[in-house]
Amino acid sequence: MTDTQPDPNALPTAALIIIGNEILSGKTRDANLQFLADELGKLGIRLIEVRVIPDIEATIIATVNELRARVGYLFTTGGIGPTHDDITALSIANAFGRELILHPEAHERMKRGRFELNEARLKMAHVPDGATLIDNPMSPAPGFKIENVYVLAGIPSVARAMFGTLVSELSSGSTIHSANVDIFLPEGDIAKPLEKIAEDFPSLDVGSYPFSREGRFGANLVVRGTDSEQIAAAMERIVGAMIDLGGDDAVGTTG
Amino acid sequence: MTDTQPDPNALPTAALIIIGNEILSGKTRDANLQFLADELGKLGIRLIEVRVIPDIEATIIATVNELRARVGYLFTTGGIGPTHDDITALSIANAFGRELILHPEAHERMKRGRFELNEARLKMAHVPDGATLIDNPMSPAPGFKIENVYVLAGIPSVARAMFGTLVSELSSGSTIHSANVDIFLPEGDIAKPLEKIAEDFPSLDVGSYPFSREGRFGANLVVRGTDSEQIAAAMERIVGAMIDLGGDDAVGTTG
Repeated sequence: MTDTQPDPNALPTAALIIIGNEILSGKTRDANLQFLADELGKLGIRLIEVRVIPDIEATIIATVNELRARVGYLFTTGGIGPTHDDITALSIANAFGRELILHPEAHERMKRGRFELNEARLKMAHVPDGATLIDNPMSPAPGFKIENVYVLAGIPSVARAMFGTLVSELSSGSTIHSANVDIFLPEGDIAKPLEKIAEDFPSLDVGSYPFSREGRFGANLVVRGTDSEQIAAAMERIVGAMIDLGGDDAVGTTG
Repeated sequence: MTDTQPDPNALPTAALIIIGNEILSGKTRDANLQFLADELGKLGIRLIEVRVIPDIEATIIATVNELRARVGYLFTTGGIGPTHDDITALSIANAFGRELILHPEAHERMKRGRFELNEARLKMAHVPDGATLIDNPMSPAPGFKIENVYVLAGIPSVARAMFGTLVSELSSGSTIHSANVDIFLPEGDIAKPLEKIAEDFPSLDVGSYPFSREGRFGANLVVRGTDSEQIAAAMERIVGAMIDLGGDDAVGTTG
């Protein structure tokens, strides 16, 4: 480890709040966590916590206020539609102690939509006072940003499209890289040498994820960090340890 | 609403902590949340919050201690394997202020396993002092339970098998039922009548989840609760409102 190595703890941090009873009831499988985790990693932003919470105003307020104070970027998904259970915008306004206002530009966009702008749809043009809009490439209804809180739709295609409009604003200047290798040895056999390697590369995140595939035990060993040379050096040590143990038919990938 | 209707707020509550850097990095897509949400619903237990946190001891301790005080049942998945990044058992021992001890029965089970019981694997026979084992039908390494905290493996097949051994112990005596209907109307058109129906059935959870399918807009309207008659009555009102609006080719299912 050299002094010039980037400190992963200095990377910007993010958290995600998934708002919706449908996830907690098991009705709907979340599809936003992995997408955002992946994209944030590419931007050099560490996702440090995710919470799934119900459509309850007090819970949204408490969770938003706790997490926005702890991370660089707080994302929320869900609850910005036209129905009675869509209470995210109002809850976030209350979390910030702001009024929920009709945003003129959002209002114009909703007027240009293909559906009649009734009372329910007009709700989607309301944001906390002082918020700026997040463009929605899929429909007229925008997301919004207030301070470090980014409020996205819950529908995965829309959440992705909205996130895509934010990428240039979010880049941290670093990228989190990773390399991984599958070993066909049971995880318990490589645990000890792997622990030593993890200790020797404190700036990297070294993980082991066991699997059973076609009747054979194995583990996917993953190294993540911002310094590609360190990652390559750690991976060389891992492959060496694996060969020593006789698990020689590994398949590795880097990204 | 009648006085004899079960109060959904009186149902036992649960929370889930998904422990693992691999979920937060986007490497692995969680597969335990939806399974547990679904199974808990069948047992009449309301899942009220899920958190995804990294393999960091202080975070695990704080999260376990916060949530175990708030819910009837706290489940964790992940971090009970043999490698250096598996720190769940130690962290939970420290959350409870207990020693991590070699559990005699877990030790016996690990000895009977097919792999050499080295130092790394012996870690999987350690539990907080006073914990009881959760059987693992897939391998010798058990989960454990301490007070209201249930510690399960992260691998989905193992988490499911462990959960299966707990079902008789967890049953609340109620079941959460649901009914849902797809309407081929944009969500904003049915928002107002749906809000009135939700108000008229305060013991039920009425949700609306928009979709776009084969070029048509629609929404899946869901009613959940413990009283099947109330659910049927609410669903009849929803279908009536939908027919009034001209969205007559709905497909409904109940479960």
